[in-house]
Amino acid sequence: MAAFSSSLIQGGNSKEQANSSVGLPALDVSKAFPQATPASNFPPAVSDYYQFDDLLTPEEQALRKKVQVIMEKEIAPIMTEYWEKAEFPFHVIPKLASLRIAGGTIKGYGCPGLSITGSAITVAEVARVDASCSTFILVHSSLAMLTIALCGSEEQKQKYLPSLANFDTVACWGLTEPDCGSDASSLRTTATKVDGGWLLDGQKRWIGNSTFADVLVIFARNTTTNQINGFIVKKGAPGLKATKMQNKIGLRMVQNGDILLQKTFVPDEDRLPGVNSFQDTSKVLAVSRVMVAWQPIGISMGVFDMCHRYLRERKQFGAPLAAFQLNQEKLVRMLGNIQAMVLVGWRLCKLYESQKMTAGHASMGKSWITLKARETVSLGRELLGGNGILADFLVAKAFCDLEPIYTYEGTYDINSMVTGRELTGIASFKPAVLAKQSRL
Amino acid sequence: MAAFSSSLIQGGNSKEQANSSVGLPALDVSKAFPQATPASNFPPAVSDYYQFDDLLTPEEQALRKKVQVIMEKEIAPIMTEYWEKAEFPFHVIPKLASLRIAGGTIKGYGCPGLSITGSAITVAEVARVDASCSTFILVHSSLAMLTIALCGSEEQKQKYLPSLANFDTVACWGLTEPDCGSDASSLRTTATKVDGGWLLDGQKRWIGNSTFADVLVIFARNTTTNQINGFIVKKGAPGLKATKMQNKIGLRMVQNGDILLQKTFVPDEDRLPGVNSFQDTSKVLAVSRVMVAWQPIGISMGVFDMCHRYLRERKQFGAPLAAFQLNQEKLVRMLGNIQAMVLVGWRLCKLYESQKMTAGHASMGKSWITLKARETVSLGRELLGGNGILADFLVAKAFCDLEPIYTYEGTYDINSMVTGRELTGIASFKPAVLAKQSRL
Amino acid sequence: MAAFSSSLIQGGNSKEQANSSVGLPALDVSKAFPQATPASNFPPAVSDYYQFDDLLTPEEQALRKKVQVIMEKEIAPIMTEYWEKAEFPFHVIPKLASLRIAGGTIKGYGCPGLSITGSAITVAEVARVDASCSTFILVHSSLAMLTIALCGSEEQKQKYLPSLANFDTVACWGLTEPDCGSDASSLRTTATKVDGGWLLDGQKRWIGNSTFADVLVIFARNTTTNQINGFIVKKGAPGLKATKMQNKIGLRMVQNGDILLQKTFVPDEDRLPGVNSFQDTSKVLAVSRVMVAWQPIGISMGVFDMCHRYLRERKQFGAPLAAFQLNQEKLVRMLGNIQAMVLVGWRLCKLYESQKMTAGHASMGKSWITLKARETVSLGRELLGGNGILADFLVAKAFCDLEPIYTYEGTYDINSMVTGRELTGIASFKPAVLAKQSRL
Amino acid sequence: MAAFSSSLIQGGNSKEQANSSVGLPALDVSKAFPQATPASNFPPAVSDYYQFDDLLTPEEQALRKKVQVIMEKEIAPIMTEYWEKAEFPFHVIPKLASLRIAGGTIKGYGCPGLSITGSAITVAEVARVDASCSTFILVHSSLAMLTIALCGSEEQKQKYLPSLANFDTVACWGLTEPDCGSDASSLRTTATKVDGGWLLDGQKRWIGNSTFADVLVIFARNTTTNQINGFIVKKGAPGLKATKMQNKIGLRMVQNGDILLQKTFVPDEDRLPGVNSFQDTSKVLAVSRVMVAWQPIGISMGVFDMCHRYLRERKQFGAPLAAFQLNQEKLVRMLGNIQAMVLVGWRLCKLYESQKMTAGHASMGKSWITLKARETVSLGRELLGGNGILADFLVAKAFCDLEPIYTYEGTYDINSMVTGRELTGIASFKPAVLAKQSRL
Repeated sequence: MAAFSSSLIQGGNSKEQANSSVGLPALDVSKAFPQATPASNFPPAVSDYYQFDDLLTPEEQALRKKVQVIMEKEIAPIMTEYWEKAEFPFHVIPKLASLRIAGGTIKGYGCPGLSITGSAITVAEVARVDASCSTFILVHSSLAMLTIALCGSEEQKQKYLPSLANFDTVACWGLTEPDCGSDASSLRTTATKVDGGWLLDGQKRWIGNSTFADVLVIFARNTTTNQINGFIVKKGAPGLKATKMQNKIGLRMVQNGDILLQKTFVPDEDRLPGVNSFQDTSKVLAVSRVMVAWQPIGISMGVFDMCHRYLRERKQFGAPLAAFQLNQEKLVRMLGNIQAMVLVGWRLCKLYESQKMTAGHASMGKSWITLKARETVSLGRELLGGNGILADFLVAKAFCDLEPIYTYEGTYDINSMVTGRELTGIASFKPAVLAKQSRL
Repeated sequence: MAAFSSSLIQGGNSKEQANSSVGLPALDVSKAFPQATPASNFPPAVSDYYQFDDLLTPEEQALRKKVQVIMEKEIAPIMTEYWEKAEFPFHVIPKLASLRIAGGTIKGYGCPGLSITGSAITVAEVARVDASCSTFILVHSSLAMLTIALCGSEEQKQKYLPSLANFDTVACWGLTEPDCGSDASSLRTTATKVDGGWLLDGQKRWIGNSTFADVLVIFARNTTTNQINGFIVKKGAPGLKATKMQNKIGLRMVQNGDILLQKTFVPDEDRLPGVNSFQDTSKVLAVSRVMVAWQPIGISMGVFDMCHRYLRERKQFGAPLAAFQLNQEKLVRMLGNIQAMVLVGWRLCKLYESQKMTAGHASMGKSWITLKARETVSLGRELLGGNGILADFLVAKAFCDLEPIYTYEGTYDINSMVTGRELTGIASFKPAVLAKQSRL
Repeated sequence: MAAFSSSLIQGGNSKEQANSSVGLPALDVSKAFPQATPASNFPPAVSDYYQFDDLLTPEEQALRKKVQVIMEKEIAPIMTEYWEKAEFPFHVIPKLASLRIAGGTIKGYGCPGLSITGSAITVAEVARVDASCSTFILVHSSLAMLTIALCGSEEQKQKYLPSLANFDTVACWGLTEPDCGSDASSLRTTATKVDGGWLLDGQKRWIGNSTFADVLVIFARNTTTNQINGFIVKKGAPGLKATKMQNKIGLRMVQNGDILLQKTFVPDEDRLPGVNSFQDTSKVLAVSRVMVAWQPIGISMGVFDMCHRYLRERKQFGAPLAAFQLNQEKLVRMLGNIQAMVLVGWRLCKLYESQKMTAGHASMGKSWITLKARETVSLGRELLGGNGILADFLVAKAFCDLEPIYTYEGTYDINSMVTGRELTGIASFKPAVLAKQSRL
Repeated sequence: MAAFSSSLIQGGNSKEQANSSVGLPALDVSKAFPQATPASNFPPAVSDYYQFDDLLTPEEQALRKKVQVIMEKEIAPIMTEYWEKAEFPFHVIPKLASLRIAGGTIKGYGCPGLSITGSAITVAEVARVDASCSTFILVHSSLAMLTIALCGSEEQKQKYLPSLANFDTVACWGLTEPDCGSDASSLRTTATKVDGGWLLDGQKRWIGNSTFADVLVIFARNTTTNQINGFIVKKGAPGLKATKMQNKIGLRMVQNGDILLQKTFVPDEDRLPGVNSFQDTSKVLAVSRVMVAWQPIGISMGVFDMCHRYLRERKQFGAPLAAFQLNQEKLVRMLGNIQAMVLVGWRLCKLYESQKMTAGHASMGKSWITLKARETVSLGRELLGGNGILADFLVAKAFCDLEPIYTYEGTYDINSMVTGRELTGIASFKPAVLAKQSRL
């Protein structure tokens, strides 16, 4: 027995292993598994079965193609590594900047002034390759920049937006708190008026990009009015700490932070004059939910593309996996879901463009699309078998990335209740137990 | 702008950040989120609503309790860290050894000689806290040790099993190859008879524990008979390399390896005399599938326990999450699934104990239970909201860990076809396209 | 054109059709479709894959077999006709009486005194062939007779039970009202004390068997105490009207009635002394829900048996339908569900027998089993293709019969909330809107 | 006991019941259940949440409105009765004729020449109120008339289409046979050339409208060429018999027939010159599947409308059902499905209009939409509780009507395989077992 007894408890590093297999670098997946191509070589886009592209303007089509090319070329080769490490690939920011999509629908101030449909389709194309990159951009653009554009003063817009549009600076958006997730309007961070400015005190949690952002849009409760106000806080502000949240299963490149604000001073000029109550955040969230709804669309597209290639490459029992009834049914169901998601997302944009979109429309779009995406990526996960566990083949990563999206910007249930209230005229957010308790 | 311009592209490490928030260690989750207890402090076991425990013998009940205590105490506090790092916690092997469960149902040779029901319940209790530990043990015990016990010579059993039963040595089991997953019987690794032994040549993939195992049970095609034979290969054998597979989304502590065998010599005494065809592996796989079926049961139990505690701790809209209709329905559905999974798994064990279990029974048990577990952990993921994304709160980790289990030891579809063949008398594994192609 | 112009508007009865195809009797399905056997010739019982039968006593096994034989022989040949007509086949009552199962677990008074497991398995075996017959018996036995047995005086038991046990008389059970379904405890029918008895006033709805029952157990609110009381009302009582509900899609043989009570006098001797509040009905409902839970089990068994035979008889594309992957997967999923349903139902009986069963146990059993049955019959419906639309092939009928069962004795949602309350300690039946309204 | 002993076996018609409740006419549902309005008074159309109507032309919008009004006014009040009786309401044919929709997209010959989108929306609006009426029209118009228009001679078109467009005559379409359902191309009915015409011999099954149709389009295998040909057979032709199929659970107004052809002579002038192989039917089926896809859309709309009204009318626990979380979520999920189904159906029409539609497009549209509709009506069934069992409240009827639609014009599985073949280039209709058998 001695000949092969190990020293497992010491981590398997005993001398006898020096000339053995232990400690060798992992095989590249394309060598370890030559039968199917990994996602670093991204599969062609083949999910547009119902030719949705024809509903886009030539400008929108061109932008879509441009985003697709850069994502496939610049991000696909590195994403598995950074996702696994849970680090953000700062060196790709110039590539993302070159897309000229930050700021989205904002006109002027160096922003691209896209149509909402055009902006949405860029969200999908980024997410198709990597959802973390998409969330990084959305937080920066559709939450932070849009808040400044909609609620900021002219000075604030001129000061902050051009740099953000170029990704010379990066922004985050701080609403959620440890005790206030779905019930965001109850937030407890306070803003106390002092001479020449405000002192912010409190905690934020889950704030994407916050560990490195230059500009932090922070919401806090005005201690005088008891209403929600908004502030621009800068990196390095006194009493501001942002620490990285760890152990996430999805969107692992996105750096979510725990923010601590301790008597953090914000000068008067950095208070956003357009945020005077919680309702003022809803203008931003309405657009943001439309954009977020296109993330699961893009994720599903990428998963379909990968599965379509994989099923034809991978053989078992002497035939490509594409030849099996059970696999074809799954692939077709995925494709049907995608056509529907795209069209629902498109119609939502059109309602917005014609100024008919309500909060209920946006919430239903986000929740319904995400629900279908969850089914779609789950089918894809199954189609890839063991390779559906490895981030190298995209689908595993996409499967995980969808989960935070299912939950953020309103969970499935919360968004259903938002729409339900609009449909029935009755709010059902709170349970009846509150009534009983309040009688005590 | 200069005041807050960043050097993002350099990774956010510029000097100006020295005294700012960047680079601080992450907050401990129990401080960052005090409202609910993380899984390092494991929740009480509350999923046995239909008192399945009454169907166990006192010995089985005691063993169950013993496993539960050690897992909660020793593994729960460290599992998030190792899962995130994708490393195996070698230092806990003595703790796992102290459970005296390796070898399971094997009698003699230092093995515990448990009932299959007793062995199954230990699988569940380990997986309830951490599925990676459970897979580590199953590969070692229900695949490798059992193969030696069922197909080995008396000398082999005496030589290998006692040390393995104590975890003084660790084993792995190599069947799957890059080109042969579901279609395992087509494996291509060859065993060529030479003087005094055999030369093994080929590749294996996905082999759990293989990067550090002392004993590798390897299946290869005898170049003379063209039948499958089995061999015991030892760590350090010439021409043997095992490299770690990376970027897994689930069972991240488990070290799966790519194995390369290049003229690896195995002496005659290490050929397993009881493996003379692919069918001989099925004796092992039948038991193994029963054991594997109890992993999703255990995972689901742990997820339920966590959700049950979380829903009562976490408050939104002024009430515990447990007070909301939508949450209660999910929790009850999870619990119903668990009672059913446990009873199906138990009945499978009883069929085995009375020697009535067929391959179809085992396959249906594994596939049906895993399907329900997939629904159950998905509901749990949703119930935990944002905290359902963090491995710290167990459910996110469990959600990911279930996916490889859904796929290994026969995918859901393959196991369905195994049972379907038994029910209908018709094999449907291969697609019709084969027939057409073979006519060419 | 004149040669073939029709008189469709007159119903297609014009003279020229006298010698044509119109008005001929429908073809017998076994002639019109010879390829597969209809359910009048009932398929063999093949769903007990995990040999649940071994968990029964020899007496229970014998009773099961007896019920199976009579149902297949006496009911299967006539059920399609009566279901289509929505009429009850009164002539089969002696056949059902010969089973000696009315009264179920009641001991003495001519009742069979079965174990609850034995009683449950008879419910399943009746429902396997025809769910309407099963509901007819359950209303009579597990609701009405059991209420008399649990809440009646010794005189009432001696007077009513023997005749009911023989089906010489038939009973119904009246709780539900037009305005009170899920919220049964709010019932509005009143019982006013008068000299020598009570006057009942109010309406009941959905009362099975009520259009022909000899004995009607009726619940009403005591106008003095405001509590629920129970009464035995006899057919022909003054002021009592029961009219048949029409246009049901499921359980079409069961005669549900609208009951009108207008100053219906009930003598003191027919008041049930054991019903003094709504809680007293719960003793009955707890048992009843266990029994009801076995209806979907039986329905699913029958559907599986039918599909199993059909898939092997019916050929398309030159092969039996049983040879197709997509069909095998559905068949196996159905079978897995059935094993689980049976075991959950069995465990529920055992909890009851050991006096550990709670209301939450029974509610979860009923709701979980019915949910799985809904999936199971839906798969069966799909497997039978066009013949899944015709009641002749059982599955279409079973598909429809399951729907009322999904809803009665507590809807899926209500039963989930009953269990949810037990799990969390918080009742969530009522919406928060009540609180707001009550403040007005 | 004598006082209430019954004569149940004689059907409950004994004398003593003369003055009791038995034999009274059923209560009108609006009296028996005043709390919610039945579908005879049809609910307002409220499902167009995403304002799909804006995508229609003014002509299409006007036609939609016209169909809606007539269906609600003329059909809603009588449909429950005819559905329950399983009879066709011949007297409403003039009402349906007044819609001027028969012939759909056919130009000339008295046909309306609608856009395919316009035609589709009329299908949905008819099906919204009653799916049987919709199938009656589709068989007549999109199968029979379209076959004559696409494959008929100029003389045949002039002779048959004007009368059919007016519903002066009614047509049916006979492809399916007892042994050939999904595998329609294997049909066995023969056409043998004789002097001056053809003799048809064989059986057809499931042929809608055939028991009273004036014009029967029949497909048969030319005994000389072995190819499929098409024929116009007239009511009263010698050797032609069509008998009604009974015991259907859905589309109960539609009269499906078993057709027997025994040396039925068809003159040369009634052979359709454009049908020379099975492929020629596919031109018709492509359009027909688009139309059929709009039936489940319409059904789902009607179910939503009904649920939306019902939830606000019906109260339990002191609140309208619309106030409960579990109900709101279901209602919102239904609405999301409907928006998606409408948009997928619409895009399919647009692909057709731009001549880009493939068979795979149509098959996926039909199968995906029907799958979502199945979920939608199932949710609706649940929302209506007990009243979801009664055809009077629409949803029960719709729930049943959807099932044949899920299966006809290609089952869900067959349509998936059609699209799967297009996606992968591999046909998977036939199982591998064929290959084995063919080697014998």
